[in-house]
Amino acid sequence: MNPGNSKLVDRILENALDEDIGPGDITTSAIVDSEIRGEAQLSAKEDAVLAGMEIFSRVFSLLDPGIEVNSKFHDGDVLRDGTYIAQLKGSLRGILIGERTALNFLQHLSGIATLTRAYVDKIKPSQVRVIDTRKTTPGLRLLEKYAVRVGGGSNHRFGLFDGILIKDNHIVAAGSITRAVERVKAHVPHTVRIEVEVTDTKGLEEAISARADAVLLDNMSLEEMSSAVSIAGGRVLLEASGSVTLESIGEIAKTGVDLISVGAITHSARSVDISLEVTDIG
Amino acid sequence: MNPGNSKLVDRILENALDEDIGPGDITTSAIVDSEIRGEAQLSAKEDAVLAGMEIFSRVFSLLDPGIEVNSKFHDGDVLRDGTYIAQLKGSLRGILIGERTALNFLQHLSGIATLTRAYVDKIKPSQVRVIDTRKTTPGLRLLEKYAVRVGGGSNHRFGLFDGILIKDNHIVAAGSITRAVERVKAHVPHTVRIEVEVTDTKGLEEAISARADAVLLDNMSLEEMSSAVSIAGGRVLLEASGSVTLESIGEIAKTGVDLISVGAITHSARSVDISLEVTDIG
Amino acid sequence: MNPGNSKLVDRILENALDEDIGPGDITTSAIVDSEIRGEAQLSAKEDAVLAGMEIFSRVFSLLDPGIEVNSKFHDGDVLRDGTYIAQLKGSLRGILIGERTALNFLQHLSGIATLTRAYVDKIKPSQVRVIDTRKTTPGLRLLEKYAVRVGGGSNHRFGLFDGILIKDNHIVAAGSITRAVERVKAHVPHTVRIEVEVTDTKGLEEAISARADAVLLDNMSLEEMSSAVSIAGGRVLLEASGSVTLESIGEIAKTGVDLISVGAITHSARSVDISLEVTDIG
Amino acid sequence: MNPGNSKLVDRILENALDEDIGPGDITTSAIVDSEIRGEAQLSAKEDAVLAGMEIFSRVFSLLDPGIEVNSKFHDGDVLRDGTYIAQLKGSLRGILIGERTALNFLQHLSGIATLTRAYVDKIKPSQVRVIDTRKTTPGLRLLEKYAVRVGGGSNHRFGLFDGILIKDNHIVAAGSITRAVERVKAHVPHTVRIEVEVTDTKGLEEAISARADAVLLDNMSLEEMSSAVSIAGGRVLLEASGSVTLESIGEIAKTGVDLISVGAITHSARSVDISLEVTDIG
Amino acid sequence: MNPGNSKLVDRILENALDEDIGPGDITTSAIVDSEIRGEAQLSAKEDAVLAGMEIFSRVFSLLDPGIEVNSKFHDGDVLRDGTYIAQLKGSLRGILIGERTALNFLQHLSGIATLTRAYVDKIKPSQVRVIDTRKTTPGLRLLEKYAVRVGGGSNHRFGLFDGILIKDNHIVAAGSITRAVERVKAHVPHTVRIEVEVTDTKGLEEAISARADAVLLDNMSLEEMSSAVSIAGGRVLLEASGSVTLESIGEIAKTGVDLISVGAITHSARSVDISLEVTDIG
Amino acid sequence: MNPGNSKLVDRILENALDEDIGPGDITTSAIVDSEIRGEAQLSAKEDAVLAGMEIFSRVFSLLDPGIEVNSKFHDGDVLRDGTYIAQLKGSLRGILIGERTALNFLQHLSGIATLTRAYVDKIKPSQVRVIDTRKTTPGLRLLEKYAVRVGGGSNHRFGLFDGILIKDNHIVAAGSITRAVERVKAHVPHTVRIEVEVTDTKGLEEAISARADAVLLDNMSLEEMSSAVSIAGGRVLLEASGSVTLESIGEIAKTGVDLISVGAITHSARSVDISLEVTDIG
Repeated sequence: MNPGNSKLVDRILENALDEDIGPGDITTSAIVDSEIRGEAQLSAKEDAVLAGMEIFSRVFSLLDPGIEVNSKFHDGDVLRDGTYIAQLKGSLRGILIGERTALNFLQHLSGIATLTRAYVDKIKPSQVRVIDTRKTTPGLRLLEKYAVRVGGGSNHRFGLFDGILIKDNHIVAAGSITRAVERVKAHVPHTVRIEVEVTDTKGLEEAISARADAVLLDNMSLEEMSSAVSIAGGRVLLEASGSVTLESIGEIAKTGVDLISVGAITHSARSVDISLEVTDIG
Repeated sequence: MNPGNSKLVDRILENALDEDIGPGDITTSAIVDSEIRGEAQLSAKEDAVLAGMEIFSRVFSLLDPGIEVNSKFHDGDVLRDGTYIAQLKGSLRGILIGERTALNFLQHLSGIATLTRAYVDKIKPSQVRVIDTRKTTPGLRLLEKYAVRVGGGSNHRFGLFDGILIKDNHIVAAGSITRAVERVKAHVPHTVRIEVEVTDTKGLEEAISARADAVLLDNMSLEEMSSAVSIAGGRVLLEASGSVTLESIGEIAKTGVDLISVGAITHSARSVDISLEVTDIG
Repeated sequence: MNPGNSKLVDRILENALDEDIGPGDITTSAIVDSEIRGEAQLSAKEDAVLAGMEIFSRVFSLLDPGIEVNSKFHDGDVLRDGTYIAQLKGSLRGILIGERTALNFLQHLSGIATLTRAYVDKIKPSQVRVIDTRKTTPGLRLLEKYAVRVGGGSNHRFGLFDGILIKDNHIVAAGSITRAVERVKAHVPHTVRIEVEVTDTKGLEEAISARADAVLLDNMSLEEMSSAVSIAGGRVLLEASGSVTLESIGEIAKTGVDLISVGAITHSARSVDISLEVTDIG
Repeated sequence: MNPGNSKLVDRILENALDEDIGPGDITTSAIVDSEIRGEAQLSAKEDAVLAGMEIFSRVFSLLDPGIEVNSKFHDGDVLRDGTYIAQLKGSLRGILIGERTALNFLQHLSGIATLTRAYVDKIKPSQVRVIDTRKTTPGLRLLEKYAVRVGGGSNHRFGLFDGILIKDNHIVAAGSITRAVERVKAHVPHTVRIEVEVTDTKGLEEAISARADAVLLDNMSLEEMSSAVSIAGGRVLLEASGSVTLESIGEIAKTGVDLISVGAITHSARSVDISLEVTDIG
Repeated sequence: MNPGNSKLVDRILENALDEDIGPGDITTSAIVDSEIRGEAQLSAKEDAVLAGMEIFSRVFSLLDPGIEVNSKFHDGDVLRDGTYIAQLKGSLRGILIGERTALNFLQHLSGIATLTRAYVDKIKPSQVRVIDTRKTTPGLRLLEKYAVRVGGGSNHRFGLFDGILIKDNHIVAAGSITRAVERVKAHVPHTVRIEVEVTDTKGLEEAISARADAVLLDNMSLEEMSSAVSIAGGRVLLEASGSVTLESIGEIAKTGVDLISVGAITHSARSVDISLEVTDIG
Repeated sequence: MNPGNSKLVDRILENALDEDIGPGDITTSAIVDSEIRGEAQLSAKEDAVLAGMEIFSRVFSLLDPGIEVNSKFHDGDVLRDGTYIAQLKGSLRGILIGERTALNFLQHLSGIATLTRAYVDKIKPSQVRVIDTRKTTPGLRLLEKYAVRVGGGSNHRFGLFDGILIKDNHIVAAGSITRAVERVKAHVPHTVRIEVEVTDTKGLEEAISARADAVLLDNMSLEEMSSAVSIAGGRVLLEASGSVTLESIGEIAKTGVDLISVGAITHSARSVDISLEVTDIG
């Protein structure tokens, strides 16, 4: 498991460093001589699933290749309050300048992985998959979708370009589900599946007849979802969607749908408390 | 009040559009003819403080200058569940392609403004200011700090370049608070204030003697903060910092500090539920 | 039909203009005053399928929004030697500076559309689709895949990110087709289909058992392909691939495969001869 | 001989990698563990002139500096069908991810060098030079002009900024060849030569009188070109231009012109068949 | 006369605006409401040659297309202390935010044009040309070379890519002037001239024999230059170079050289005093 | 002391290299084989303060990491005419290609440091600081402000974003100094100081009452400045500004102001003469 295209990742990290450093860290460059070295300790301040450890290290490498980050932990590992996650060694300047940016990534991604894991745990040991949505933080989708995988979730399509999702408005514009599916089949690469959003079982039946590959059940009740599962009979993948919470996901999974998409894991995860303390200077 | 450098804002929005659209929206371009026009309605699905209305419109302008977004609401307005926020008119293609990106900004920024307002309301009618931190989402600091202002908060420094904050590690590297402040005074522009982080009243006294302009009281108890206020006697600005919650902020404000910084308003605000429904196609 | 993400298209065109213009057109700026206006005529010098008409106009708009390009022709139209394609009006300087870049796009894309149309015509009226590959000119894939669609072809996946193609080396690394498909199913979004490359019918059978969605028949003889069609019995899409020529495509189509991929339409199409003549200056 | 500004070259290669990889190679990252190493063999599948060997290696270096490309061949070497060009060793993931992009460059550039060599061979052992034009693939001019040199050709000016070419429309705008040359002489750096395009010997005579350095003979017959050579008598360089083919170039060279420009070598060269086969995994 | 590739110019201006504005103008956005309009007057505070008037306007257009800059003056016009150069009207915010950046360009470029004019005036009415060098301010060469032309000077080559200048070190590396010229003739486009740097008349003679087009006389005395002019007899262009001052240029011109290059006009021109005063607010 | 954000610095240097090299150095690549090595010597040709030594080295590192620059000198050191500053070793090609760009930075920055030092020396041994302005060369502010520090000066705010300077037009827009200061206090981060520009002592008194932190005395006479110092009595920092020259700065310092800003040190410093001579080739 890796975050994806490493050049894109680097551009995201460099952009974040630029945002924080601007023309320069005026406090640190005035006080800390460039030769001073330091050591620092990264620790968890609460229980969490770790995500972004390589990102954290990479932020420092981009800033100063001489800074070492040593850790026995990997993304996906469970952290407890107090866990000593990693040790940093190198230029004190570099450590102080990169600290906030590196932590911002680590805390944000670990927050997403931790919340995803909570959803995933609620529906174990079923085969149902928790999947993400396009409701991600602008500019961070690549990393957030990675954090979802770290937390045990799966990804929906990345964007508008790598999967077909025919929504209500597409259906209205086309005239019917059947015509929307036909138009798509005539134009898109054979390498993507066709998913259709429906609000009732009538829509589901039409989507199946039109030979869709997957159907998104939009804001259906548990009864409707169960009914949809019966109707589909395995002919299409079924995705439950709409206001899924930690309380409701268990019951939804029992309806027999294949996938449950949860916007909250990316748009409303809170940051995990992780701290970096300088332990040695000189 | 505006979000700041509009070219930087545009770059953030274009980057987000690119992330979502990639080579193209394969669903919409296959189904929706480029001449079809549509209307859509933006509505709140819960109570919130609106933030990002101009950003929302700008996303569509960048995509297709022909799309109009008409609204009587402005950033800072209170929304109720069901509030009809704005109407969109224009190319249906453009509306469908830009929808998710525009909403991701609006929901995220409104989430920050709403949470900030909650903190600010807890300490009214005191003069104490709620301020943000550098614990922002990488790449979105400009917009997130704007949303904090929309919510009634104030901003701390933007980054490492536009304010001095001498932290514990700087003090250790310099040898003492006094020497750290001296070094900074010798090097930095006269246009920035000097703030020193201290953990006890002894540090506070040294910072005042060294002629710091502001002092950050790090994780102090209410008693320590009250004591710090007495010692300072208005000679320096005092910033309370560390694990501030909606429950604790009221008592902290009563100690008489000038500023209370809250990381959660940017790093842990959840997204506000706002929806866009196409109301007319043709 | 449109070329896709218009911001990406603009970046490709601006890059090309930059490449040609560099610090400036030293001949034209020395000779032609900026107020002089001109008219020019775009004509075909051989039979071809037109592709890139909007791109051609957009090059001039990016250079000088005052230049008008008026044409009754659209991408996909058949041109004859001598066809008067379009008239240009505007600043003579702008016309002369943009001419070569605009023509380079138009001639290149029309070349691809023309060659694609030749392949497509060879297999009419069958339902078999001619599809492209990733053997495109670096930097121009978005436009070249568009030109393939203009010529009547269909697109394979855009890149490594929006479709699964399990090739021989992936199979060796995984141990077997079955294990490769399993790994992919466990990791990738449900929105993409899974295609497996095989070299014989044994591979085809394993791919079908593993529940692949499509199978690429690599360099098979006509007999092998016919046999593959029988074995598949409609359970998977079949793509014929490998050294397809204008001579061989007809027979391949008759085997009953669903798709025939042709690298030559993007990597070896020759440029169409189209000229731009200034007809009036003053 | 080298391709030129290496930062520009890197930007072209990184852009091409981005285009193909996008957010990530979903097939390879799902199947191939990051520790697996591989070896691969690059071989020619037809006779050709090699061009782009360093470019090929650089694509892999940019992706993963641990991948080694070892070859005894250099740009300009003649390849035979079956020639074992190079061996690759390193991360299998990196090899599979970079393969297509690296090959697209190598096959395209070798195609240009091969076609250029064919033209050059037709006019040996004369001193006449085969030169390229600005009819190059948008975005790849730097590399394509390099491939022309590899094939034994010479370069015309790079773009509009580094050479003067006064064309028919410039002449009309100026009023006469003489006035066009005068204006240019008054404005452009003394470091560039002045070339004038003419369609008949009258134009040639005026260009010589106006003290042009070179004259482009546009679409002249063999007789007219011979006559032009006599008239010029070595006072200006003569460039033959217009619909030059492998069949016609020999006779053109015999007229005694100095340079023959051929658009086809860059705009219509077909890709050379070169393959990369993984030979060892583990 | 224009500054060259307008997209390149825009990138330089946007970069400069970014540098000054960063996340935003915190003074102006706090004090000046976005609806307030203003008028301002641009005036010269000393005698000078105006250069950069369009650049000045363009800075404001890029910031806010609603700001008008009206002027009767054009680049090349002579300004006197007190000359009312232009009037600005539009958003007061925009005027205040763009003021410094726009003035920095105008004052810098006018400084170059003014100094260039001073050198040019010293050698009137001779035909000798004052030319610039590559000793320009990094990042501003396009604009500085334009300012030189505005001041009546001519440009040497733009950079390393658009002209040949064989310097002492090239000659040592090649073995002799003759061999250096031969190598260049074999490799470079026929569209550029070949200039050779020499330090004595022996070098000049070899350069002429080798058929160089121009010769740079490096730090020669007036006598040596006169002698060089006799030797050359019009067969090559002669460029005088090295520590040329306003005091020495007159005598140098009298030696009969064709070109005199002056580094100081770009690397040591002082800024012209031009001020912008707001005249009306409301 | 360092130039600041090293990624920003690299972007400035890469941009300058691109500007000079463009598609490639056609002279050097034709003449100098890539294996040839060389040594060169950097020497001062006049007395100066060195600034930009690391920048000089970095230009070569970016071009070719194999080039070594060895020097015993550091920024701030005084150079005499003839001082042997540094030795270069490495690829001769790289040395010749990077030479001009590297020197352009070094000569420009040393010019600024040298002029700054001259101003600073004039007011020794007073405590008054010489500070710069925003009148810098577009695109080079980061480096020029660094050179000012090297020369012994201090920096004013970097741009519009990191300091408050309320100018005459802001005051008019706000209605009064008092209201302008109030608005700013309500909106800006507590980390920046508030400076107000005044033209007379009445303005100074109002600024002090409004609790400004610093006051810029605009174009005041020596008497007015002395009077301002008395009035301020240490309650605000005082900055003298306006047409400060080497002749006038001594008297200004004696008035007792805290800071004297000098635009000339960045906008009108002339380049220092420093040369690079190749000493060995082979």
